Amino acid sequence: MIKVAINGYGTIGRRVADAISLQDDMEVVGVTKTRPSYEALALMENGLFDLYVIGDKKPFIDEGIKVKGTLDDLLGKCDLVIDCSPKKGRENQVIYDKYGLKQIYHGGEKASIAEISFVAQCNYMDAFNKDKVRVVSCNTTGCSRLINAFNENYMVIEAILNLARRTVDPKDSRKGPVNAYIVEVNTHHAPDVLTVIPGINISSNALKGPVTEMHAHIITIDLEEDVGKDEIVSLLDSTPRIRLINSAMGFNSTAEVREFGRIINGSLGGDLYETIVWEDKISVEPWKRRYWRKDQEFTRVTLAQAIHQEADVVPETVDAIRAMFGLMQKEESMLKTDLSLGIRRQKNV
Amino acid sequence: MIKVAINGYGTIGRRVADAISLQDDMEVVGVTKTRPSYEALALMENGLFDLYVIGDKKPFIDEGIKVKGTLDDLLGKCDLVIDCSPKKGRENQVIYDKYGLKQIYHGGEKASIAEISFVAQCNYMDAFNKDKVRVVSCNTTGCSRLINAFNENYMVIEAILNLARRTVDPKDSRKGPVNAYIVEVNTHHAPDVLTVIPGINISSNALKGPVTEMHAHIITIDLEEDVGKDEIVSLLDSTPRIRLINSAMGFNSTAEVREFGRIINGSLGGDLYETIVWEDKISVEPWKRRYWRKDQEFTRVTLAQAIHQEADVVPETVDAIRAMFGLMQKEESMLKTDLSLGIRRQKNV
Amino acid sequence: MIKVAINGYGTIGRRVADAISLQDDMEVVGVTKTRPSYEALALMENGLFDLYVIGDKKPFIDEGIKVKGTLDDLLGKCDLVIDCSPKKGRENQVIYDKYGLKQIYHGGEKASIAEISFVAQCNYMDAFNKDKVRVVSCNTTGCSRLINAFNENYMVIEAILNLARRTVDPKDSRKGPVNAYIVEVNTHHAPDVLTVIPGINISSNALKGPVTEMHAHIITIDLEEDVGKDEIVSLLDSTPRIRLINSAMGFNSTAEVREFGRIINGSLGGDLYETIVWEDKISVEPWKRRYWRKDQEFTRVTLAQAIHQEADVVPETVDAIRAMFGLMQKEESMLKTDLSLGIRRQKNV
Amino acid sequence: MIKVAINGYGTIGRRVADAISLQDDMEVVGVTKTRPSYEALALMENGLFDLYVIGDKKPFIDEGIKVKGTLDDLLGKCDLVIDCSPKKGRENQVIYDKYGLKQIYHGGEKASIAEISFVAQCNYMDAFNKDKVRVVSCNTTGCSRLINAFNENYMVIEAILNLARRTVDPKDSRKGPVNAYIVEVNTHHAPDVLTVIPGINISSNALKGPVTEMHAHIITIDLEEDVGKDEIVSLLDSTPRIRLINSAMGFNSTAEVREFGRIINGSLGGDLYETIVWEDKISVEPWKRRYWRKDQEFTRVTLAQAIHQEADVVPETVDAIRAMFGLMQKEESMLKTDLSLGIRRQKNV
Repeated sequence: MIKVAINGYGTIGRRVADAISLQDDMEVVGVTKTRPSYEALALMENGLFDLYVIGDKKPFIDEGIKVKGTLDDLLGKCDLVIDCSPKKGRENQVIYDKYGLKQIYHGGEKASIAEISFVAQCNYMDAFNKDKVRVVSCNTTGCSRLINAFNENYMVIEAILNLARRTVDPKDSRKGPVNAYIVEVNTHHAPDVLTVIPGINISSNALKGPVTEMHAHIITIDLEEDVGKDEIVSLLDSTPRIRLINSAMGFNSTAEVREFGRIINGSLGGDLYETIVWEDKISVEPWKRRYWRKDQEFTRVTLAQAIHQEADVVPETVDAIRAMFGLMQKEESMLKTDLSLGIRRQKNV
Repeated sequence: MIKVAINGYGTIGRRVADAISLQDDMEVVGVTKTRPSYEALALMENGLFDLYVIGDKKPFIDEGIKVKGTLDDLLGKCDLVIDCSPKKGRENQVIYDKYGLKQIYHGGEKASIAEISFVAQCNYMDAFNKDKVRVVSCNTTGCSRLINAFNENYMVIEAILNLARRTVDPKDSRKGPVNAYIVEVNTHHAPDVLTVIPGINISSNALKGPVTEMHAHIITIDLEEDVGKDEIVSLLDSTPRIRLINSAMGFNSTAEVREFGRIINGSLGGDLYETIVWEDKISVEPWKRRYWRKDQEFTRVTLAQAIHQEADVVPETVDAIRAMFGLMQKEESMLKTDLSLGIRRQKNV
Repeated sequence: MIKVAINGYGTIGRRVADAISLQDDMEVVGVTKTRPSYEALALMENGLFDLYVIGDKKPFIDEGIKVKGTLDDLLGKCDLVIDCSPKKGRENQVIYDKYGLKQIYHGGEKASIAEISFVAQCNYMDAFNKDKVRVVSCNTTGCSRLINAFNENYMVIEAILNLARRTVDPKDSRKGPVNAYIVEVNTHHAPDVLTVIPGINISSNALKGPVTEMHAHIITIDLEEDVGKDEIVSLLDSTPRIRLINSAMGFNSTAEVREFGRIINGSLGGDLYETIVWEDKISVEPWKRRYWRKDQEFTRVTLAQAIHQEADVVPETVDAIRAMFGLMQKEESMLKTDLSLGIRRQKNV
Repeated sequence: MIKVAINGYGTIGRRVADAISLQDDMEVVGVTKTRPSYEALALMENGLFDLYVIGDKKPFIDEGIKVKGTLDDLLGKCDLVIDCSPKKGRENQVIYDKYGLKQIYHGGEKASIAEISFVAQCNYMDAFNKDKVRVVSCNTTGCSRLINAFNENYMVIEAILNLARRTVDPKDSRKGPVNAYIVEVNTHHAPDVLTVIPGINISSNALKGPVTEMHAHIITIDLEEDVGKDEIVSLLDSTPRIRLINSAMGFNSTAEVREFGRIINGSLGGDLYETIVWEDKISVEPWKRRYWRKDQEFTRVTLAQAIHQEADVVPETVDAIRAMFGLMQKEESMLKTDLSLGIRRQKNV
């Protein structure tokens, strides 16, 4: 039974804690908060995890919130810590090292904080018995799952990611924009995918609009092989943690996709752990580029996917733990995680 | 074991079905859909309820969706039907009557469709052994809980409701507005509250902005009595299905309120069944109105509440069933419902 | 010819500058900016006003922006300064006083910064020959125009303002909320109206949603007199700077109202200087409040209005200048301002 | 003096009418509306153009709106009609043909409705003395201006357009989405650009988010030549109707870009006729694609541009008229149009 500390009970931290508590080979010893807040109140009410505080206990006690101890108390009892702090991983690492803990970081941190950047289906074994692993961000996870499927089966000439990002999480009420797009060219997403899948030709751009639920990606992938749409659909349909959907079933936008998650996974807060790809919007076409008077022929795949930004890194984090302790092989771990979280393994919708 | 049909597996229907399946004195025999859609797919995947179809089975079968039978098949096996159709209650009633079923309608229907309009804590006993009951809309439910608490304890001179409505549910991607307010004066909400709590002096106005999660109400209530804030806080704190919160805990807007629900009630999709009142925003002040040269003194209460529009009618529906079959008294039913749904009965936050 | 300095060429400053440049008894000597920005670039391109800088000229020159001088240079040439700084009025006052200038502040400042708080049609003569005047905020201006019309013609028992505020101006892309309402009880708006129209019984509440264009108000006014709707419509129709509209003409929300402004006033940037009231949403009803077993009868007016937050204080600022220099009487100044800005004086739509 | 009828006084129609009235070689004889609405009211108030009605005059007269005649009356007096109807061009064409009028359509219509699809700087001369011309949509216009600049100066290997579209115009309050992205793969935009600039290798995708002001495009263009950023900046800077901006001047998003238009062009409603390209976001890099074991080297340009969807087709429409009557050459017409509308011809910002 691996003893886990969650440092930061927020958007990601609480989901990871819930997921770990559903496993039989690991357990959450405690979670932390810096200040009394509605998350701390909720924790006291749902009674799911013991609360440890970073810094002073007094503000919590003044609000009537029960505290089990400090971060140091918690770290002393654990085998591994998952850093879910808001980009404070680097300064926290000094503390974690003091306790000789294995450490998981999330995608807000730079790759250099850990020994490897992790997406289970791409590089599970690279994390085997490692001490410091970074589970990459929600967007990078979603793109890596997809690109990896292509990269393992075809000669990928090039991939271009165009991301429309949700601007803030649903719980945020302070930041905008309210009625505008913010655009970025050459974002960090492509280099980030390269930390997981090295050696591919990939670039990325992004924009943010006033949306809180789900990122939407339009992805262009050029393949050397002459491939048809059926083959690509079949590939994605059999790829773990990717789910195909069809607009005809009412999936007009990310809104209905998110609602679908709420129905199939109501008992886990309605979270959607899979990358969602519109099957009917997958375009697979023979393509031609004229280069110095010679035509090059290849296959261009263009598709659209949606990512539940709060959830898709959760199964990856569970798998990372198993890899870091060398508990089992990739397929076994992913299957175990998927079954526990209700992620479908049979054919997609 | 009361056998229940849910006619319409959508936003409200699926939540009511989930809630009924948690009770030990009633069960869901089946739910219906008119067309194949992501809700039908999700139902097949989560396997929670049998699907019956309204009209033709073929389109469902063509999409590979398992169908148990038709609406008529379903109604023939049940004691009660809950109409969760989109404002088709009146035409459906003819069918329900044919099967001699008890019937529950929701707030989209006119009051005249049923014998009484229902909010458990206001008029549970009026529904005792009745055959047709209307559970009022989310906004009316939320306002009735609050106004009823005042009305039972004080001489309410007048109440004015000003509602800021979410414009569509989170699952909708077709309707707006995107960047505007739509305002309405003298809305149906006040007359609707009067169907539950007759004889009070109440009026209402409303507006809609581009928000999908939660209605926000600002409510003004004038009381004859000289009351202090402590007394009002204490009254609301002890009122069932009302929960007090404080801005200091990070509840800056409806966004954080909704998130709080997701944490305390993750296993039920994060739904928030209670009316949420900001304790720190409750204003209780001695007030004066000068009327034909004479001052009238009274107490004015102004407060702000938030309503999770998809969820607050769910416990009311469960209670309505018990009342309609004369199963138990009000307090017993409400407590049973609240325990099953994780609605807190102790002191508020 | 009154020489005017505009300290702060932003949302309000640039509109006030445009309006003053249309008058024949005053002129803009210059406007200021603190940092090079797109407003400064635009100013250089439209060539409308001389630019003076607050602080260092170098950053402007580095960006190739022509600078006429410093704030001190500007103030030395003027008779009056209009402070359009972001709530820095108090610290700026020391500088303005040094130059012995008359001063106008805007509604972001506290009332105590000036001798009077000003809305032309309410208290023009109180500003006569004054040295320091505060033109109140957009919301307070809009409410004062309306309340004043009632207060001058009827015995107002009480007024309750419920404001739905645009959350940021159209030009802002950094602040939210994206998908939430922020509610406030007992806001500063009512006390602020009292600085313009003292002695009335008024209270206010407000909320903010993700909207950038126009505030929407729902206002309840109780009158002792027995009045009919025709009379109220006729009163508002003849009140300056209030315009009646009808939903039947397509005014479904604030979006269409704002668009109407863009058409009628295209040559002044599409700004809408008037308070816009929906005629068809004006409710005028005999009302009754039971108070200690006695019925009190009165008339309740409830109505909805929309305010273009960037524009409605502009004509007020022009009138304030005339009042402060004792140039002419109220009616004459208001008419002159309205003609110059294209504000209609005949019957409303 | 070319006599012009504007059939449809809405978002585009009113802007085109305003622009034509600023020219000395053409005039607006009248504009049309189908139903009384706020646009008709505004027209009566601003008095800019005579109103003709499509269908029955009575509803207009009932609302007190002055009507000059019917559509047939109007067409009988004109040389050219600009169809600004909501996608009714095809059925209107029969009527226009009856009067032997030259006809301009807008981008909502299919290309086959006219002899050529038009963007002035791309193919002005192709419209010379033509009778039916389609001015392409706002997005296609913006993309064509840009792609044309590259295509005339370099060997364009390929261009990929990724468009984030505003979901509705600012005046719309009925359509959404409120909190979602709608994604489309392989949209009509690329084929539409090909109607203007044939023979290039181009594809496009698009999404819609809850934004009303401006489309934002991320565009990838591969060039055979080895080019540096300075050269590309210099090319775009000298291209008519493209304007470069820098984030450092506060252009954080489309919100500030739109505001910039409101300041530089206040007297024309704040409209922004130019395609706006962020200079600092232009990426020009040597790129490599490995194709069947051989590296291909080329230059990849990626950039972000913003389009004021209500305005950028306005100058194109004016130029189209001159071309259709053979009045003058391209450069002369474009310059005349730009001067009249205040579009800058010197170096960009």
